[in-house]
Amino acid sequence: MTEYSSSLLENAVSELARLPGIGKKTALRLALHLLREDTQRTEKLAHSLVQLREKIMFCKKCHNISDTELCGICSNPRRDENLLCVVEDMRDVMAIERTSSFNGLYHVLGGVISPVEGISPSDLKINSLVERVKNEPIKEVVLALPATIEGDTTNYYIFKQIKNEALKVTTIAKGVSIGDALEFADEVTLGRSIINRTLFE
Amino acid sequence: MTEYSSSLLENAVSELARLPGIGKKTALRLALHLLREDTQRTEKLAHSLVQLREKIMFCKKCHNISDTELCGICSNPRRDENLLCVVEDMRDVMAIERTSSFNGLYHVLGGVISPVEGISPSDLKINSLVERVKNEPIKEVVLALPATIEGDTTNYYIFKQIKNEALKVTTIAKGVSIGDALEFADEVTLGRSIINRTLFE
Repeated sequence: MTEYSSSLLENAVSELARLPGIGKKTALRLALHLLREDTQRTEKLAHSLVQLREKIMFCKKCHNISDTELCGICSNPRRDENLLCVVEDMRDVMAIERTSSFNGLYHVLGGVISPVEGISPSDLKINSLVERVKNEPIKEVVLALPATIEGDTTNYYIFKQIKNEALKVTTIAKGVSIGDALEFADEVTLGRSIINRTLFE
Repeated sequence: MTEYSSSLLENAVSELARLPGIGKKTALRLALHLLREDTQRTEKLAHSLVQLREKIMFCKKCHNISDTELCGICSNPRRDENLLCVVEDMRDVMAIERTSSFNGLYHVLGGVISPVEGISPSDLKINSLVERVKNEPIKEVVLALPATIEGDTTNYYIFKQIKNEALKVTTIAKGVSIGDALEFADEVTLGRSIINRTLFE
């Protein structure tokens, strides 16, 4: 006899436990929770996951997740098509959209260059970014990649590819978090925020 | 436009976020993880959950989760049928089985009496416990319910129901955890472990 008294349960637990951040204990708790609820509830959950996986589309222009060929942002005529923000993944789009501080378009790379994880430029949507820069009326590319070595590498790689185009390339500001005391900022961030100080006005 | 760029994604996230302990952020991370993996992977997960919910059975004798009418423990002739351990749910069966310290049978109540949560004796498998005590060759009932007010209430309720039967009713020992320094035990546990001290031998 295995640890579980039911192979159906064992199977569900091992499938759930393959999800990131979910261990065997959490998986068991989730499975038992489903058993306490209506069958319909489990069916809705399972259906929504299969639908997501099978029907999902990626915007043919910015590569963000979308229900349509062209996503809601790319097809919105009120967005500024002169401004293009390059991000790692769709969560970054959501995060920037929540700030209501950006009205341009996006380009979702799908990752950043990482020799350690075996992610090379050809795994990312960099070629299509270069195409867009050449064919669309883009005046400024904002690089909004993570402030890590991988992000910096990717920034530099992209910059080399597009620097000959007639456009401005910028990156998001890095520095002390607003509302934070200086003592809580790490040394590298604080150091850079002093070097890259801006005129007080 | 909603926060998510896809209603399929939004739907999957909201279904996942209804699971206990999973918030919107975790749900989004899980959904994006599934999108990065094979479609088959999601299908296997969804299938395992639906199968679990639709096909699961509960042992007709001990009410533990089972693939068969009678669970592996109840149908095992090498288990001691004179000894019956009463637990709250199937996770307790698993925990006790892992100790390899018990060779009797189990009875899974499916909860404990809790007026706050609206759980009354009739919601639990107490009647069938009383039936078992009357009809099976049980010589000792071990109450292994949680050491909480609800657990104590349930212990007492069960005791009243079966005390006239010719059998011994015991509860699991409560005291300082083995391997723990006394300073780490809470006062109530430590106090009880002094009052209920046992002869050193």
